[in-house]
Amino acid sequence: MSIQLVTTVAGLRAESARLLGAKRGVSQGLVPTMGALHEGHAALARAAVENNDVVVASIFVNPLQFGDAVDLDRYPRTLDADLALLEGQDVDLVFAPTVEEVYPGGEPLVRITSGRLGDKWEGASRPGHFDGALTVVAKLLHYGIPAAGLPAGAAAGPQRGSLPAYRAYFGQKDAQQLALVRRMVSDLDFPVEIVGVPTVRAEDGLALSSRNRFLSGDERDAALVLSRALRLLEERANAHEPLDLDSALALVESQPLVELDYFDVVDPGTLEPLAENCRETPFRGDALALIAAKVGPVRLIDNVVLNS
Amino acid sequence: MSIQLVTTVAGLRAESARLLGAKRGVSQGLVPTMGALHEGHAALARAAVENNDVVVASIFVNPLQFGDAVDLDRYPRTLDADLALLEGQDVDLVFAPTVEEVYPGGEPLVRITSGRLGDKWEGASRPGHFDGALTVVAKLLHYGIPAAGLPAGAAAGPQRGSLPAYRAYFGQKDAQQLALVRRMVSDLDFPVEIVGVPTVRAEDGLALSSRNRFLSGDERDAALVLSRALRLLEERANAHEPLDLDSALALVESQPLVELDYFDVVDPGTLEPLAENCRETPFRGDALALIAAKVGPVRLIDNVVLNS
Repeated sequence: MSIQLVTTVAGLRAESARLLGAKRGVSQGLVPTMGALHEGHAALARAAVENNDVVVASIFVNPLQFGDAVDLDRYPRTLDADLALLEGQDVDLVFAPTVEEVYPGGEPLVRITSGRLGDKWEGASRPGHFDGALTVVAKLLHYGIPAAGLPAGAAAGPQRGSLPAYRAYFGQKDAQQLALVRRMVSDLDFPVEIVGVPTVRAEDGLALSSRNRFLSGDERDAALVLSRALRLLEERANAHEPLDLDSALALVESQPLVELDYFDVVDPGTLEPLAENCRETPFRGDALALIAAKVGPVRLIDNVVLNS
Repeated sequence: MSIQLVTTVAGLRAESARLLGAKRGVSQGLVPTMGALHEGHAALARAAVENNDVVVASIFVNPLQFGDAVDLDRYPRTLDADLALLEGQDVDLVFAPTVEEVYPGGEPLVRITSGRLGDKWEGASRPGHFDGALTVVAKLLHYGIPAAGLPAGAAAGPQRGSLPAYRAYFGQKDAQQLALVRRMVSDLDFPVEIVGVPTVRAEDGLALSSRNRFLSGDERDAALVLSRALRLLEERANAHEPLDLDSALALVESQPLVELDYFDVVDPGTLEPLAENCRETPFRGDALALIAAKVGPVRLIDNVVLNS
């Protein structure tokens, strides 16, 4: 079956309901993206297709989360390649609306606010970014609520009289965004399960990102210290050794093309830095190591989940 | 059929789904309240029952929207009488959760922010009030999303393969709250239709409010100037005469027990004051006259929709 493209909210709702009915489906997955898709997005789509009867991917570059009009303008748009990638993963439906379709009344007056979880790390250098991102995610989550799919005569089951299962997929690569989306869904009780999908890396370890295409060869080589430094921490955590953030930091600072913004080990729920002694005593528990740096023209972020 | 009471979100979802299935219903109505119900709430319930197969009323005094712990503590709680009133209106299900059920993780970190529409009028004297109110309304609207109601074998119809209709009912009495809820639902695309229900008044014109019980006899008499002043504006609007806000204002100010906070004529969508000349030229169009005053121990608000 060929992938379908809809550009309106009404079209998305009608078409996903029709598909759910036609497939006698009991679950729907949503994969929100900003396009410029790569293998990281393919992994999101694959996870969604594996677990849901109907899968919708959205492609929307959200002006509300860009502080800078230049950054917004130069964000890559590659719709034909995106559709081919999603079709290759058996996604059923692509929702690619215009800005006017998503914000018919101009900028929204009532919004989501991300609170102190959105002010730190990425939020510190991109004021308003997470409020804008959560606001559009809230809208997309509402668009994707699955309609009643079971047609008359379908087998009775535990799903009788209840909504089809609804899941939305976000990459672990944007760790702070994922933490904030999880928090929004639980604080505001959105009827959806948020699924985090592990970061996909190039063979050399660089986390895939739509922005990597703007790196020169030298910059790309330099950027590898980010994932190497994270890998160091991961190895220490796995070996129950002290994390020794200083050595990992020295590795990053040895690379003159990399301008470090932050590098820290935090609680995965609150994103607050772990107490100093966690870095100096044998590591046990759950944590997240976050790193962000400017490399040439590009701001890169990466992270690793520490669990031992 | 006797009214049912549930106290958990899971219970609400299961029971409303069961009712929708048992009734072969295609529509669900939600009536969010803070309890201490009166005839104004009965009108909300009546409107909901008239238009929906299953009706859920919620009773929850939301700490997040009270700036003042004393005001929160003395907000009246009258559960038995509330249940009787709702049963009298044929409401199916009452959801009366604890604070812990609604906020299991303590105060929410990610919230709704009401923007400039929430900073003015009532918001000016109650900072954070509308953010707190919208945050709990967002949660309640999510709880009340109807499950797929049509059981196997139900007649096919336009609702086949789509969500049951979903409507939520709010009183015109809290005009700014109603405007903000409408704006939230449209800005964030909640899958619900918001229905505003006209203010219910006592025979003498006083708008019903859970707080009226705190007025002494003299204070109650004095409070009548609020509705009288609004009525003056309404008569002028209906007659296409200039609104003459000054005369209405003089009426309010003639009453020494009434301490006026604000009294103005505003655009019903933006809540911005109408241009001066709208008050001095014959009135045509849509507007909202808003008034708020302290009378004895109680802050009272009232409003009238002007439409001519």
